[in-house]
Amino acid sequence: MARIKAVGTGSKKDTITKKAAALFRKKGFASTSMRELADNIGVEAASLYNHIGSKNELLQTICFTIANAFTIQLEKVAGTTASNISKLESLIRFHIQMMLRSYDEVFVANHEWKQLQEPFLTNFLSQRKNYENALVGIVQDGIKKNELKKLDPYVVVLTLLSAVRGLEFWQRHKKNLDATKLENDMVNHLIKGLIK
Amino acid sequence: MARIKAVGTGSKKDTITKKAAALFRKKGFASTSMRELADNIGVEAASLYNHIGSKNELLQTICFTIANAFTIQLEKVAGTTASNISKLESLIRFHIQMMLRSYDEVFVANHEWKQLQEPFLTNFLSQRKNYENALVGIVQDGIKKNELKKLDPYVVVLTLLSAVRGLEFWQRHKKNLDATKLENDMVNHLIKGLIK
Repeated sequence: MARIKAVGTGSKKDTITKKAAALFRKKGFASTSMRELADNIGVEAASLYNHIGSKNELLQTICFTIANAFTIQLEKVAGTTASNISKLESLIRFHIQMMLRSYDEVFVANHEWKQLQEPFLTNFLSQRKNYENALVGIVQDGIKKNELKKLDPYVVVLTLLSAVRGLEFWQRHKKNLDATKLENDMVNHLIKGLIK
Repeated sequence: MARIKAVGTGSKKDTITKKAAALFRKKGFASTSMRELADNIGVEAASLYNHIGSKNELLQTICFTIANAFTIQLEKVAGTTASNISKLESLIRFHIQMMLRSYDEVFVANHEWKQLQEPFLTNFLSQRKNYENALVGIVQDGIKKNELKKLDPYVVVLTLLSAVRGLEFWQRHKKNLDATKLENDMVNHLIKGLIK
């Protein structure tokens, strides 16, 4: 069988992780075997272990790469002097882009995190909770500064994140619409709906 | 063991269906046995069959009761002379109320419909597609009549339905917020966000 090919500028580990994300999304983490992953890449199962330690490690890599991408973006946006409404808009645009560009990985992080083992499970949940709390904080500050309607901040964050997550259905049905138009329309609806 | 008690004004079949919905939501349809359902009600499994034909029949009853509730509400609202924005508001309020009041049943209809057998599966999907198309039609008419922002109608409907579905997380965490305030805040955000 062939050797594992590095894709673009990524490493062989990146190639394996990307294929794993696609399989975990389609079949679920529990139902995907390392043998199947190897078959899918076109190599012997044994050669996967030259690059990664285990199936669990692949799930950890996927979940934490996604969680970190959101945390880094949040820190970048939170550190600016932009208005709270601009911060929310920028974060929601990032969510939509991630959903469209890294769909397999985001889907796995959203659905298969339950299969993480400790201490990773607790760490993942705590990172997600911190992220949500930071979003709630931005909404609260926006209400305090009279930028946003006086709505329950938790309900606002739940509405925003759920709406974005709904793009899973979009991905599944591959509707014929430009990604930029999709992003602009969702932002227009969801972010403008918060302005007083 | 005891006899099946009718709850409120409902029949014994209603009691069984309600318990089934709660179990199917918690454990999944496939993992719930009729024996477990009987144990949960506190009767012999055999006595369930005096009231219902099979586990499949229970799933059909749950899925179509929910689908019909939405279809009936849609027909009621669509037949009025209200503006399109009022129609959308009224339907979204109904979705939120259903999610809060009939959570088990709505959850099962949202997640376990895949387990329906033919011809019920096709029928359910077609009813759901018609419902979504009718919502898209209301949004299209609202845009045409200049009531609503010019957004992609399919994106609008996906955003609305996904946001409402996000109340699953709400239900799971039982946040301490009045149902009316929750409904009003979501409507203020999601429906006002559509007005030009």
